[in-house]
Amino acid sequence: MTGDDVSDANRMGAFIKDEHAIAKGKVRYIGEPVAAVAADTEAIARKATQLIDVQYEALPAVLTPEEALAPRASVIHEDAASYFKVFDTGTVGNLCSRTEFREGNIEQGWRDSDRIFEASYETQPQAHLSIEPCGALADIDPSGRITLWSANQSVFRVQANVCESLGLPMSRLRCLTPRVGAGFGNKMEPHVQPIVVLLAMKAKRPVKLILSREQDFEMVRARHPFKIKVKTGVKNDGTLVAREVDVLLDGGSFADDSPGVLGYSLLMSCGPYRIPHARCHGRLVYTNKMRFGAFRGFGVPQMTFATETQLDEIAHALDMDPIELRRKNLKQDGDVWFGGQTIHSNGLSECLDKVQSASGWTKAQKREATPHTSRALGVACAAHISGLLSTGAIVRVLEDGTIVLNTGAVDIGQGSNTVLTQICADALRVPVDRIGIASPDTDGSPYNWGTTASRVTFMTGKSVMGAAGEVETKLKEHASEMLECSVDDLELLPGGLVGLKGVPDRAVSFAAISARAHWAAGGPIVGTHSWVFDQKTVDPKRAIVIGLPFPQIGIFSFNALVVDVEVDETTGKCSVNRAWSACDVGRAINPRMVEGQIEGGFVQGLGFALVEEMIWDGARLANPTLMDYKIPTFQEAPKLLQPIIVESPDPAGPFGAKSVGEIGINSVAAAITNAVNAATGVQLRKLPLTSERVLGALMERGER
Amino acid sequence: MTGDDVSDANRMGAFIKDEHAIAKGKVRYIGEPVAAVAADTEAIARKATQLIDVQYEALPAVLTPEEALAPRASVIHEDAASYFKVFDTGTVGNLCSRTEFREGNIEQGWRDSDRIFEASYETQPQAHLSIEPCGALADIDPSGRITLWSANQSVFRVQANVCESLGLPMSRLRCLTPRVGAGFGNKMEPHVQPIVVLLAMKAKRPVKLILSREQDFEMVRARHPFKIKVKTGVKNDGTLVAREVDVLLDGGSFADDSPGVLGYSLLMSCGPYRIPHARCHGRLVYTNKMRFGAFRGFGVPQMTFATETQLDEIAHALDMDPIELRRKNLKQDGDVWFGGQTIHSNGLSECLDKVQSASGWTKAQKREATPHTSRALGVACAAHISGLLSTGAIVRVLEDGTIVLNTGAVDIGQGSNTVLTQICADALRVPVDRIGIASPDTDGSPYNWGTTASRVTFMTGKSVMGAAGEVETKLKEHASEMLECSVDDLELLPGGLVGLKGVPDRAVSFAAISARAHWAAGGPIVGTHSWVFDQKTVDPKRAIVIGLPFPQIGIFSFNALVVDVEVDETTGKCSVNRAWSACDVGRAINPRMVEGQIEGGFVQGLGFALVEEMIWDGARLANPTLMDYKIPTFQEAPKLLQPIIVESPDPAGPFGAKSVGEIGINSVAAAITNAVNAATGVQLRKLPLTSERVLGALMERGER
Repeated sequence: MTGDDVSDANRMGAFIKDEHAIAKGKVRYIGEPVAAVAADTEAIARKATQLIDVQYEALPAVLTPEEALAPRASVIHEDAASYFKVFDTGTVGNLCSRTEFREGNIEQGWRDSDRIFEASYETQPQAHLSIEPCGALADIDPSGRITLWSANQSVFRVQANVCESLGLPMSRLRCLTPRVGAGFGNKMEPHVQPIVVLLAMKAKRPVKLILSREQDFEMVRARHPFKIKVKTGVKNDGTLVAREVDVLLDGGSFADDSPGVLGYSLLMSCGPYRIPHARCHGRLVYTNKMRFGAFRGFGVPQMTFATETQLDEIAHALDMDPIELRRKNLKQDGDVWFGGQTIHSNGLSECLDKVQSASGWTKAQKREATPHTSRALGVACAAHISGLLSTGAIVRVLEDGTIVLNTGAVDIGQGSNTVLTQICADALRVPVDRIGIASPDTDGSPYNWGTTASRVTFMTGKSVMGAAGEVETKLKEHASEMLECSVDDLELLPGGLVGLKGVPDRAVSFAAISARAHWAAGGPIVGTHSWVFDQKTVDPKRAIVIGLPFPQIGIFSFNALVVDVEVDETTGKCSVNRAWSACDVGRAINPRMVEGQIEGGFVQGLGFALVEEMIWDGARLANPTLMDYKIPTFQEAPKLLQPIIVESPDPAGPFGAKSVGEIGINSVAAAITNAVNAATGVQLRKLPLTSERVLGALMERGER
Repeated sequence: MTGDDVSDANRMGAFIKDEHAIAKGKVRYIGEPVAAVAADTEAIARKATQLIDVQYEALPAVLTPEEALAPRASVIHEDAASYFKVFDTGTVGNLCSRTEFREGNIEQGWRDSDRIFEASYETQPQAHLSIEPCGALADIDPSGRITLWSANQSVFRVQANVCESLGLPMSRLRCLTPRVGAGFGNKMEPHVQPIVVLLAMKAKRPVKLILSREQDFEMVRARHPFKIKVKTGVKNDGTLVAREVDVLLDGGSFADDSPGVLGYSLLMSCGPYRIPHARCHGRLVYTNKMRFGAFRGFGVPQMTFATETQLDEIAHALDMDPIELRRKNLKQDGDVWFGGQTIHSNGLSECLDKVQSASGWTKAQKREATPHTSRALGVACAAHISGLLSTGAIVRVLEDGTIVLNTGAVDIGQGSNTVLTQICADALRVPVDRIGIASPDTDGSPYNWGTTASRVTFMTGKSVMGAAGEVETKLKEHASEMLECSVDDLELLPGGLVGLKGVPDRAVSFAAISARAHWAAGGPIVGTHSWVFDQKTVDPKRAIVIGLPFPQIGIFSFNALVVDVEVDETTGKCSVNRAWSACDVGRAINPRMVEGQIEGGFVQGLGFALVEEMIWDGARLANPTLMDYKIPTFQEAPKLLQPIIVESPDPAGPFGAKSVGEIGINSVAAAITNAVNAATGVQLRKLPLTSERVLGALMERGER
């Protein structure tokens, strides 16, 4: 198949419909698929691809946002103006989208400030690097109905995207998700699924495609490189008064989730602090690179790197303890987030207490080291939302009294199947081993937007509680007829029983009730619930918001992180010896898995801070292999990595739970950089902190 | 695996829990599995089975019901008394179950009769012979959850049976049904699924097993051989007054669906006629043969063979036209079925008119033939229910306005997917190609008892209409807010629109409504419905019913059949030249497929009447191959086979539809036998009418 098999009109995209299933007419980055071959064996397919003769006409490439925005730059999407967009993106030439927030009066803010700090920051592209590369398998029925198994984070987004990109009615495509070997954001939107489906339709046979590691590097998606200018005004006592942020994002060849990343990073640009006057602006730019997209943190690790390292600069300038500076400005319960929702639970102050105490923090961040090394503590804070959009759950009590929970939520290895099972088990007072969990299936699962935006525990958990509540109501209705009593006199008893309150031996089992329901109601007891955020729009008196492609959500998790970093002054190599990461997750449904998320987020953040970087040699990705692209191993992980759970239950959450999937990564690069800066006295503003870069800074410091 | 892998307590069975997944301790018939082996290749597995050394201790076999009921007969289930039973079966020794119906006063009936006719009839075992032999594939997840694909008629019965036979919680087993190559009743209850699941659990790997044709013959199930005594009292004018029936069923080694077959055949033993006094009694007996079970017609082809051939005997004795005799006694709309439900639609009289006219029927049934052949018309009538128990449907309107219909109903090739799609399309006024149909899945489909008892069009159709109705309500609720009008002012417009009545350009599409629902209600528009019969129990003033294992249902389809049969008097070979089969199906949702069902039922009935017979040589099935067991081919099919659709809509049916899956087979053997008897002057009372048997009767006639 080639682009000729795809209609020009059939373009997909989460926010801007700018992408065909396969390159059509124009190739926008090196690695973009131009042809696909299916064959009986991999060897035949490889041979066949070698016989393909592609004629390329070379076009000038634009490889940075600055080049792309320059006058007379080669335009990557000539028809961008006519593309369908889900919000007003402000697309012009290679400018893909722009977002702006204003709150208070920024000019007044500068006037009210005693001191103003301003600097530019830069972050690098990072690869998602799931252990399992992207892959898919499509089968086609004689009726033309297609079944698609694929590694993904949202079986429903796969369905929508494939149908959009191939012009298929959604009713003709069933999408399933088997076990997934991690996602981190790059399996939320499509990868090879449209290609595999089209090949199966053409071949009228099942087609399977698993990307090689190199292809997975080159053609899926990666974390956006950010260029961020941050300007902050403060009082001499450390009170934050004004914040201006200007962001330039390289989006790569297609918009994908990038407008969302831009918007969300700006929404988080004041951090968890009270800053009365703010103006945040950002631009997303098309370039001739692979698309960048959603990645754990969704723009916040980059933004936090800039804002939280500037906070330390301010603290040093004001001779304040960095923790005290933060504590002084923290948002409190009942405060309102940047332009939006009221916060009802905020355990960040407790998080700061915990890491301060655990780490033995003192204002003098420097710690004793060897002659050739320096060592210091660093701190950073961050916040993260607990979901977006909508999700459902179906709970069925089968004839033997066991339960099947079907949510459509993809467990990408983070353990949501376990957590949702626990929530259901607690709600119905049954042991967890009585509950089976259905895997996501567009034909049979309730709608679930996806495993993204740190939403599954909070949102799907809410749906599970709603569905379990409906089951409880139905169980009691049947039981009241079976026991000849009022529904109000009944209660769930442990182990799958409905009993008369205070009369322990008057009870009926779930199995007996379900058997009755089969006769009386035509099937097992079924509870269904769809949970939808009460999505407030921004109060225009409070803030101006232009180009935010999703509603604002007010349920936040918080993190305070302290790291103990050692810098080898002879090589520039930075190592994290110890780390204390306190997360306010509302309520830890499964504490061990919460700790696992905090640990995993830290180590992935460590890679982002110190070693990981996708490097382009001209237009070509130079290091698309595990030989050349390094991620942290046990060797690089801190000797002590202490996750600390703080529970500030949110009234809206299931049993008070908030999110934990992304919060643990957001502040890592900032805290490490603050520690390196404190240890060495340099001011690093560009990631990653490779030995070369740190050594360069140390040499510059020496020259000063 | 062997019986040692199965706990003694884990027995399955639709009515009596008498069967292990694999022979345990005792082997009850030749062909019963005693061990199963899974291996990487079929060759290894075959070799491994040859290494199994089974030590058998020979026990005396009982191979007929009479032998089994004899005093001191070897008992097949020593523990039968302790088995769990879903109704009072009256099990004693090898007597598996008994059923009895009484209506009116049989002694009074005999006194009121001018003449009494009495005879014994016998039918043979018939093989289901689906093109696809039974098979299953089970996979097991590291969590221990099992997915099972199998050829079946009810994904929910598979789940229940496998879990029962292996002691598995139902929540641990997901059952799926891919396309099925026909069922005819033998794939309703389990075949190899429990064995395959247990092998997969032991191997912790996927296991697939497809039976060979021989195994499929020997170890699944077949149509029951019946021995039937029928005694009928009539007035001289042909008015039926009294009917007594006594039935002896060979059930084989396990009860399976046999108690149901016995009960249902007795429920139909008065046929579609008014007979004020009746007493029907039947016994089901365990023997050392393979289990017999459900087969298209569910005992009615056998019962109809006896009762409808006796009716012709009566007609000849009274010198009446057989059609007139039947017409005189027909039940009418508003009459009550044998002990039970009121009939609200009955097109049998019209069916008789149609076949009488199409066939050129005259009282002199004999037709002109060649010197060595004789030829005559034969008639028979029958009825059949339209379902049992419960079924559900879920209709989803996706974001692009297309629709997925999920019912859990297995399409076994009869075309229910098409019919249910049509019902849904009509209900929502969209073209059929906008609707995709989900395949049955215990995790995602609504409960559906199964594709059996002629129930899918009627019952699942009712559920689809209910679910579509809920969708219509929800669509209108959204549309009323979108168009700012009252719900009552809205109507569905063709092509997936909801519009303001009388204002054609004020309409919103299903796609727009579904998109809105995603934001406002957390997912697509979903309608759910479970349809349950209003199941009346028998009025004890009207009738005595003992041992009927299911409630009575009052929605009947009817059939009148005339055949034109030629008998070669030199060989005894009978051939059907022409056939006219009129079926009252209420409303033919898909006329071509209704005709297909009538034709298919006829040809399968033709095999039953003339050629098909499973023959036991002692305890061993002697003809378990397609070489030795013959079914009709195009060669044997009538030159003219005219299905005639009669529509007497039932107020309860979807668009008035009733059943068609089984009605077409019930009267075939009876009509053919009546024609043979009329052509030759013999009185055949035993099936099949093989050349040998007919020639024997002709020779006897010659000797008389």
